[in-house]
Amino acid sequence: MQTLSVQLGERTYPIYIGARLLRDRELLRRHVRGSAVMIVSNETVAPRHLAALRPAFAGMQVDATILLDGEEYKTLQTLETIYTALLENKHDRGTTLVALGGGVVGDIAGFAAATYQRGVDFIQIPTTLLAQVDSSVGGKTGVNHALGKNMIGAFHQPRCVIIDTDTLGTLPDRELSAGLAEVIKYGLLGDASFFAWLEENIDHLLRRDVDALTFCIRRSCENKAAVVAADETEQTGKRALLNYGHTFGHAIETGLGYGSWLHGEAVGCGMIMAAVLSHRLGWLTATDLQRAYDLVKRARLPTHPPAGIGSKRFLELMAADKKTLGGKLRLVLLRGIGQAIVTADFDQGALRSMLEDLARESHSQP
Amino acid sequence: MQTLSVQLGERTYPIYIGARLLRDRELLRRHVRGSAVMIVSNETVAPRHLAALRPAFAGMQVDATILLDGEEYKTLQTLETIYTALLENKHDRGTTLVALGGGVVGDIAGFAAATYQRGVDFIQIPTTLLAQVDSSVGGKTGVNHALGKNMIGAFHQPRCVIIDTDTLGTLPDRELSAGLAEVIKYGLLGDASFFAWLEENIDHLLRRDVDALTFCIRRSCENKAAVVAADETEQTGKRALLNYGHTFGHAIETGLGYGSWLHGEAVGCGMIMAAVLSHRLGWLTATDLQRAYDLVKRARLPTHPPAGIGSKRFLELMAADKKTLGGKLRLVLLRGIGQAIVTADFDQGALRSMLEDLARESHSQP
Repeated sequence: MQTLSVQLGERTYPIYIGARLLRDRELLRRHVRGSAVMIVSNETVAPRHLAALRPAFAGMQVDATILLDGEEYKTLQTLETIYTALLENKHDRGTTLVALGGGVVGDIAGFAAATYQRGVDFIQIPTTLLAQVDSSVGGKTGVNHALGKNMIGAFHQPRCVIIDTDTLGTLPDRELSAGLAEVIKYGLLGDASFFAWLEENIDHLLRRDVDALTFCIRRSCENKAAVVAADETEQTGKRALLNYGHTFGHAIETGLGYGSWLHGEAVGCGMIMAAVLSHRLGWLTATDLQRAYDLVKRARLPTHPPAGIGSKRFLELMAADKKTLGGKLRLVLLRGIGQAIVTADFDQGALRSMLEDLARESHSQP
Repeated sequence: MQTLSVQLGERTYPIYIGARLLRDRELLRRHVRGSAVMIVSNETVAPRHLAALRPAFAGMQVDATILLDGEEYKTLQTLETIYTALLENKHDRGTTLVALGGGVVGDIAGFAAATYQRGVDFIQIPTTLLAQVDSSVGGKTGVNHALGKNMIGAFHQPRCVIIDTDTLGTLPDRELSAGLAEVIKYGLLGDASFFAWLEENIDHLLRRDVDALTFCIRRSCENKAAVVAADETEQTGKRALLNYGHTFGHAIETGLGYGSWLHGEAVGCGMIMAAVLSHRLGWLTATDLQRAYDLVKRARLPTHPPAGIGSKRFLELMAADKKTLGGKLRLVLLRGIGQAIVTADFDQGALRSMLEDLARESHSQP
C-alpha cells in the first residue's frame, strides 16, 4: 500500500493506493469517528463491491443508498433520496458517508455529506480510474442543473481516499479510457516528464498492467494534491489549471445531454480542442500539438467534437460555464507540453474560427 | 448608524444597525465585489421594500427572485428556483446574492449562495426582528426536509448584515413577538443584566420604541456574535447554547407542520418547557422560572405546548432533532437566569413526566 497526503492544514487527509484495500477493516475503521455509516453506491458498482466492503463496519449501524447509474442522475432529486435515507435511518451529525463508486457517486455523496445537518464526515472509495485520479481528490462536490454541469455544489474534503486497484479489474474499457483522459491532463498541464512516461506506457495502461496503473494513479494524485494544496477553493487561479480541456468538454456534455459521451471522453476531446486553439494562437508548436493528439488518440478517446453542436451553440455553452468571470471567457491553454496557463487574454476570433472549422469536419459518437 | 463586528478571522464581517439603511447606496455598494446582484425576497416583503433597495445597485445587473412567503416553502424545490433564476440570467461566480426578508428568505438565499457554483458572495438584509437578532448573524443557512427542520444546509458567512430598523414599522405584531423570543433567549442563556433590562423595557419594545428596539437588536447581535466567534461551526458545544428552547420548539414546529406556529412562538414555548424541566431537576429556582414565564408571557408568546402532540410523539420528534449525538438526547438547560448549559446528563424520566403533565393541560393555537 502506498500513502500520500493532501496538505490542507487541519483538513489534511491521506490517500491510500493498493490492492485489496476494500477488505482492509483496520484501515477503514480508523477513519470512521462515529458508530454509523451510510454507504452510497450505484446499481452497477454495488453488486460488484458492496459485499466486500460491508464487513469492515461490523458492529456499527450500516445503511446503504443505491443510486441509478449515470451522469443524468447527478441531480438535486437524487441528492434528496440520500437525505431521506439518512433521516429515515436516524443518522445524526456523527455519521460518516462512504462513497463507493465513480465520479458521479463521489460528487453526490460528497455534496450530501457537505450539506446533511450542515456537514458530516465522508470517505471516498473511488472505483473508476477517473474518480481515482481526479474527482475523489480535492473536495469538489456537487450536482448538475438542467442548465449546466456542476453548477450546484460545495467544497468538502473527505477524511480519506481509499483507492483499491482491484476495482479496475471489472471496469469497462470505455471507462478506463475516460479515466486516462484526466491522467493525460496532468501531463499536459504541468508535468512534462509524466507526459513522456505516458507516451511510453499507454499500452501497458490499456492492458491494465497493475504496476503501471499504480504508478499512474499515484503520480496523478500527487499532481492533483499539489494543486489543491496551493489553492483549495479556486481563489488564486492555480486550481483552475485543473480545468484544462474542461470548458470545451462541459460544452460537449451539456450540448449532447448527459449520458451520451462520458465525462472523460468529453475532456479528451476538449484537451485537443484547447491544444488546437493554443497552436493557432502561436503558443504551441505543431510537434507538441501532434504529441497531444497522438496520446489522446492512443488512449482511445475522441479527438473531434460531435456533430450537432454548431460553433454558435458551442460558444453559448462555453459562456455559461462557470469559468466565466465578469462576462469574459477564461480558458486554460498551453504554452507547451506541461505548461498550461489560465487566460482570458486571447484572440476570441481564433476560438470562433476553430469551432467553425471543427464543426465542418466533426464526428459523431466516440 | 451603529456598527459591530463578527470576529471570524478572514471571514470577519460587519453588522450595521440604523434607520434608512436600505437606501444607503454607498454602504450597500461597498459590499458588492462584482457587477451583478440577485435579490432574493418574498411576496410579502418585496412590495414593501424592494423598490427602496433597487436603486442602490444602479448600473449593475440586478435581478430578483420573489419566493412564496412561509416556512413551508423553505425547501429544496424553492432553492432550485433560485438556481434556475441565477443560471437563466447568467450569473457567474462574481455575483452577490442579497437576502431581503425574514429568516426563511435569509436561510434559503444563504444556502443558495453557499452552493451556487460552490459558493458566491451574500449580503443579509433582515426585515423581521427575528432575523435581525438571530438568523441573519452567524452563517447558518439551509432548508427543511419533510422529515426535519434545517436538516440540509451549510455554514456560509455573509459579507455583511444590514439592519434597517425602519423595516420593523410594517412588521405584524405577531412577528414582533416571535422576534422577542430570540431576544429573551440571549438573556436567559447568558446575559442576566440584559434579561433584567428586558423585564424593564418589554412594553417599550412592544410599542416599537425605536431606541429600545435599536438597543435590543444591538445587544442581541453582540451576544450572538460572541458565541459564533467562539464556535463558528458548532465544534466545541458553545454554539449549541444558542439552541436554548429550540429542541422543544423544533418538535412543536415539526409536529404541527410548518406554517402553523411561527418559529419564534415555538421557541418561546420551548424556552419555558426547558425552564420547567430545569426547575423539576432542581437546577432552577421557582423565582427564576417565574421570571422566565412572566417575560415570555408579557412578550405575547405561548408558554404551553399545543394540544395534539402527545408526550410520546414529542420525544420521538426531539430524538430526530440534530442536537442528538450518538443516539443520546442533549438539551440546553438552565442553572439560573443567564446560566445555560448543554447536557445529556439529566434524568430522562423527568423529561417524560413533564411532557405527560403538559400534554394534560396543553393549549391550542397561540
